[in-house]
Amino acid sequence: MRAVCVVGLGLIGGSLLRAAAASGRRVWGTTSSAADAAAAAEDGFATADLDAALRQAADENALIVLAVPLPAVEPVVRKIAELAPGCPLTDVTSVKGPVAETVAQHAPNPFVGGHPMAGRSASGWSAGDAELFRGAAWVVTADDGTDPALWREVAELALDCGAHVVPTSAAAHDDAVARISHLPHLLAAVLAACGADGGPLAMALAAGSFTDGTRVAGTRPELVLAMCEGNRAALLDAVDDALGRLGAARGALASTGGLRATVTAGHAGRAGLDAHRAHPTCPVTVDLADDEALADLRDLGGAGGRITRVDAGAAYGEMPD
Amino acid sequence: MRAVCVVGLGLIGGSLLRAAAASGRRVWGTTSSAADAAAAAEDGFATADLDAALRQAADENALIVLAVPLPAVEPVVRKIAELAPGCPLTDVTSVKGPVAETVAQHAPNPFVGGHPMAGRSASGWSAGDAELFRGAAWVVTADDGTDPALWREVAELALDCGAHVVPTSAAAHDDAVARISHLPHLLAAVLAACGADGGPLAMALAAGSFTDGTRVAGTRPELVLAMCEGNRAALLDAVDDALGRLGAARGALASTGGLRATVTAGHAGRAGLDAHRAHPTCPVTVDLADDEALADLRDLGGAGGRITRVDAGAAYGEMPD
Repeated sequence: MRAVCVVGLGLIGGSLLRAAAASGRRVWGTTSSAADAAAAAEDGFATADLDAALRQAADENALIVLAVPLPAVEPVVRKIAELAPGCPLTDVTSVKGPVAETVAQHAPNPFVGGHPMAGRSASGWSAGDAELFRGAAWVVTADDGTDPALWREVAELALDCGAHVVPTSAAAHDDAVARISHLPHLLAAVLAACGADGGPLAMALAAGSFTDGTRVAGTRPELVLAMCEGNRAALLDAVDDALGRLGAARGALASTGGLRATVTAGHAGRAGLDAHRAHPTCPVTVDLADDEALADLRDLGGAGGRITRVDAGAAYGEMPD
Repeated sequence: MRAVCVVGLGLIGGSLLRAAAASGRRVWGTTSSAADAAAAAEDGFATADLDAALRQAADENALIVLAVPLPAVEPVVRKIAELAPGCPLTDVTSVKGPVAETVAQHAPNPFVGGHPMAGRSASGWSAGDAELFRGAAWVVTADDGTDPALWREVAELALDCGAHVVPTSAAAHDDAVARISHLPHLLAAVLAACGADGGPLAMALAAGSFTDGTRVAGTRPELVLAMCEGNRAALLDAVDDALGRLGAARGALASTGGLRATVTAGHAGRAGLDAHRAHPTCPVTVDLADDEALADLRDLGGAGGRITRVDAGAAYGEMPD
């Protein structure tokens, strides 16, 4: 298996370095955080400064994984273009369109985007865990022009980390996560602020609905800002959808007093999530040598399916029956 | 201890009947649901039709507890005025101002409003549990004109059911629950509908933030509608606050792209909830014979305090230090 060079050793990069090592791959990492570098070295992992790590990647034709926050992606990509322009490249950041554009603009490397849908509230190398990705969805982008062989390699890394792979386009990924990750963070922030406006009495009466609805408002603001601001265009669409629906509820409450349309649409939406998770599936195979392989992978992801195994010629998984 | 007549034997009324019986009180119940009446009788509880239950309450000068859905409050109150006009009265519905107005308009009974902040997704007598209120907040209203002796009796019933008592005015209760219960249900509905608009891919990628943020959208729509529509005026204020905050986030995202104000306000709000729960408290005593007893009780609730014990002359509890 190809060696892996991880750039950025925070929660996700550090977990990936551990999981890739556990899968039997040769791995090394680099980080601008002296604390994370020292902690990783103490745990027995090879680390180096960015230049040395990338030169080693070039020497060994390693897969480079971008695991830095979005604002740091461009300078790192420029450095990769300079020191390791032939290495295959993937990333684990929360937005896929802007990263793909940055890579296309600044580096000649073959690239496939990735996004493991896993996390926890703690951060840094010390919060990492080789098992972090177990059972999680890991998006691997399959846009037109993607090299199916590299797609297969990145998918294999994700599977070896314990995740299942959801193939999709960068744009469809960004639209979906705006709705199921970034909008939830914004609404949690709005709800938490509205509750706080109710003063100590409101806090004393807060029970399950408020506690659950504001949980992710406790996430470190820098992480939320990086995610949400990095997905500006798709998040604007999702926020407009939410504003329209909340405004309609406001109008109905003020005029007829009736909230049935809002409440039943929400109930149906939540039932859809539960139904998705309980839905029977059927097995699917995508022939990666086929001309339509990338479109087939995107169709699979768009239908709610997943890939759970790959071999040299094909990807195997399941989709809702 | 005074006997208790519970009108309505669903989840809350049925749990209250059980808990009041366990506290040593003589209890009986009545319900318009033949299934709930049969199930309660089978479990060994005394039940009767509404007229007979209220005549017995008049004979024994029992405390009558209104545990029917909001739309059924007015006809029941009219019946109480006819058959048991001297009995003290409380309720357990989710909105306090409209119930107080209905009682004042249609019945001469002395009245103190109540609202146990407890629930579960199942409903009906069979979902009830004498332990449902253990550890929960139970609002007991202390408006001007409330009889402190009846306030004490209702508080004692709540305490005997395992709850702690939060004293407040009906209006302050309705404002607070609009923010920490009714708005969370509306925002969960909006979020669930926006997520569903993302299709199967969005459902396949949904993780903790969406799952937690939409949990209460799975509540039975009739319950959500009764709560939210019954608190129309206060909920409108809360929805306007949320619309203003979400609109400001939308504007910031579209113009500068920056969401810092929204995200940091949300983080501070959630930190406030955690701080309230972890805050050290100091003991307080309210002399119920004092002319200012009702104002003192409201001040205690408004400051985030609670009552945990009552005796003939005073209420004892704690508030944030």
